[in-house]
Amino acid sequence: MPLPNHSLDAELRARARLVIPGGLWGHLNAARLPEGYPQYFASAEGCRLRDVDGREFIDFMCSWGPVVLGHHHPVVEAAAREQAALGDCMNGPAPVLVELAELLVGLIPHADWCLLAKNGTDATTACVTIARAATGRRKLLVARGSYHGAVPWCSPSVAGVTAEDRAHLISFDYNDAASLDAALAEAGSDLAAVIVTPFRHDFGRDQELATASFARHLREACDAAGAALILDDVRAGFRLHLGGSWEPLGVRPDLAAYSKAIANGHPLAAITGAERFREAATEVYTTGSFWCGAVPMAAAVATLRELRRIDGPARMRAMGERLRDGLDHLARRHGLAVRQTGPAQMPLMTFADDADWRKGDGFCAEALRHGAYFHPRHNMFLSCAHGEADIDRALEAADAGFRAVRRMD
Amino acid sequence: MPLPNHSLDAELRARARLVIPGGLWGHLNAARLPEGYPQYFASAEGCRLRDVDGREFIDFMCSWGPVVLGHHHPVVEAAAREQAALGDCMNGPAPVLVELAELLVGLIPHADWCLLAKNGTDATTACVTIARAATGRRKLLVARGSYHGAVPWCSPSVAGVTAEDRAHLISFDYNDAASLDAALAEAGSDLAAVIVTPFRHDFGRDQELATASFARHLREACDAAGAALILDDVRAGFRLHLGGSWEPLGVRPDLAAYSKAIANGHPLAAITGAERFREAATEVYTTGSFWCGAVPMAAAVATLRELRRIDGPARMRAMGERLRDGLDHLARRHGLAVRQTGPAQMPLMTFADDADWRKGDGFCAEALRHGAYFHPRHNMFLSCAHGEADIDRALEAADAGFRAVRRMD
Repeated sequence: MPLPNHSLDAELRARARLVIPGGLWGHLNAARLPEGYPQYFASAEGCRLRDVDGREFIDFMCSWGPVVLGHHHPVVEAAAREQAALGDCMNGPAPVLVELAELLVGLIPHADWCLLAKNGTDATTACVTIARAATGRRKLLVARGSYHGAVPWCSPSVAGVTAEDRAHLISFDYNDAASLDAALAEAGSDLAAVIVTPFRHDFGRDQELATASFARHLREACDAAGAALILDDVRAGFRLHLGGSWEPLGVRPDLAAYSKAIANGHPLAAITGAERFREAATEVYTTGSFWCGAVPMAAAVATLRELRRIDGPARMRAMGERLRDGLDHLARRHGLAVRQTGPAQMPLMTFADDADWRKGDGFCAEALRHGAYFHPRHNMFLSCAHGEADIDRALEAADAGFRAVRRMD
Repeated sequence: MPLPNHSLDAELRARARLVIPGGLWGHLNAARLPEGYPQYFASAEGCRLRDVDGREFIDFMCSWGPVVLGHHHPVVEAAAREQAALGDCMNGPAPVLVELAELLVGLIPHADWCLLAKNGTDATTACVTIARAATGRRKLLVARGSYHGAVPWCSPSVAGVTAEDRAHLISFDYNDAASLDAALAEAGSDLAAVIVTPFRHDFGRDQELATASFARHLREACDAAGAALILDDVRAGFRLHLGGSWEPLGVRPDLAAYSKAIANGHPLAAITGAERFREAATEVYTTGSFWCGAVPMAAAVATLRELRRIDGPARMRAMGERLRDGLDHLARRHGLAVRQTGPAQMPLMTFADDADWRKGDGFCAEALRHGAYFHPRHNMFLSCAHGEADIDRALEAADAGFRAVRRMD
């Protein structure tokens, strides 16, 4: 499926460049994606995307996380429509808020309470602010390279950021207890919190699971210091485990940030917290114009119940493993060395000896032409809409991708 | 319509207190509203709200701004449904993004480009960050008491806020040129921006329109300093003027923040900017998981076109004036001294000699019992769904409210 010569995507990009800085803000800007990737999409269904030029793809980005049950999931959309018919944005919440809050507190063992918001960044920022309010301290430990949002205290860009925005941040290396201990020592008695992603999923590098010993060390260190352990589960939440991504490690945070998959694409975020932080969460002022909007809450209730009913994480893991096994098999058959990292639900495949991403980009560009939307540098996402036939079909596209990489040498 | 003894609202509040700190976050928490105000809503239609106990109100808060055409506006909801049937949260935007960006840039004279987001706070924060990136400077002037969002640099609460979060803020008094000049002098050559609301609409005090001379002085001062004038039009945007709330004053900002009314309740925010700030807006990293969601964009296109077609601001002004005139007439008839301030589309009525809000609260509580949802301390909002009959019906409720205030003495 080559891009047609007269492409609607190119036309839209040209129009957008006039009225949107850089053509598009943020992580969905396709400018740095391999050749042929579309920027504009016409429609979506299940695990399939159709771009504005009529090409259809089996999608492995799921809007970079939000789509966890598949586009147009009937149960979620019925719940959203039913609430929309009553009301969405009113002078206060609809009863579904209480239903959702009780569901979250029931699902997530560390959670005694929750707050809702709209962006992952709202949730991580609120966690940090609550931790500071609760402890009366300022220092925040962050793993070098971890993404926690797109505002000055945590943005990956330093444009417009002042030194003061990051004055109380101290960095450590993920999974490195010695580095963490050095950072803890630097924070001393002013440590408010450590914020950490459930595994290392930094853009542009292989993923790395948290070791159980590191997670436990972190928990013990926060307890010893009287500081908050904040789990930034925005990207991974509800894909790996419905109770929080560190449940399999047996390590529970004090505060956690959720967004992305929580409502299958409807805009919502959540902060969950332990009892000890409830008072601080009451004192901190965090709100937004649409945070009581009832439709995304109804979608979230339906999404979380459906994920629980079908054991969504297990299903996505199985399909992720099928993809990973297939990719391994194909790579070996083509004599190509690849690394596959991260949890199976959020896989990443990179090539050996590919510092300039030439192989990864070439693989993805060719797979895209054969109908699979992979990503060469950012973790991908499975959804519950991916079935065996979809994975097998995507593997045929991957086969073409590997062939293209072989032709490069 | 007294609250029934066995109230579903009370039941929901009791359940919520267990799982949500303080029962509810932020500005829609009804705890500080007068007696009898509901927290939970069952449904909404046009300018009417129905609470979970079946009471119906003519609404003058419009979800504190978002609802500008009325709940369930058929044109907006049809556009939203049509886009939803195609796709919402995909791997990039739908073509409607370009349509909306072109519409915003066409409507708003100062705007050469725009970015979209989800919260008003996203928009104000991005404006400040862009101004700093463009100027390479740090100082930000803010009017004392103005609300610009709910994160540490601007939150009305200091819980969890560090001194560094506000290190580069300098305050001035709204509409006070001498105070502004002193703040400008303090910022000196490090002035990045002045952020200002289009009129003074601080919670808990009478509103105050910007004087044309103050607005012009601000524009000239920013030009002289090479700093950005940021108009925080989150609360007022698209209610007073479709081209920005200072168009009637002939003063155009460099950057403006919009949200609330932009999509008639669908979650969306926008940053608009002048050409000189385009490059900085490209360098700043601002994004969110749902910022390319197509449904709110389709709702925004329909909302803005409909507001233009029917001259929404003029219509809301006319209905706001009808309400204001009626309230004045009634207050005089009851021998009560009231002050009515702010633009007619966003009115506020307060009582003379009412430092403890006893009269305002009593008025609102009684009006609520008679079917009108007013606010004693925060500016109210008209929508285009308010017709003459609704205003007249609300005035009957106000009459009862005034009678109750008279009975207090």
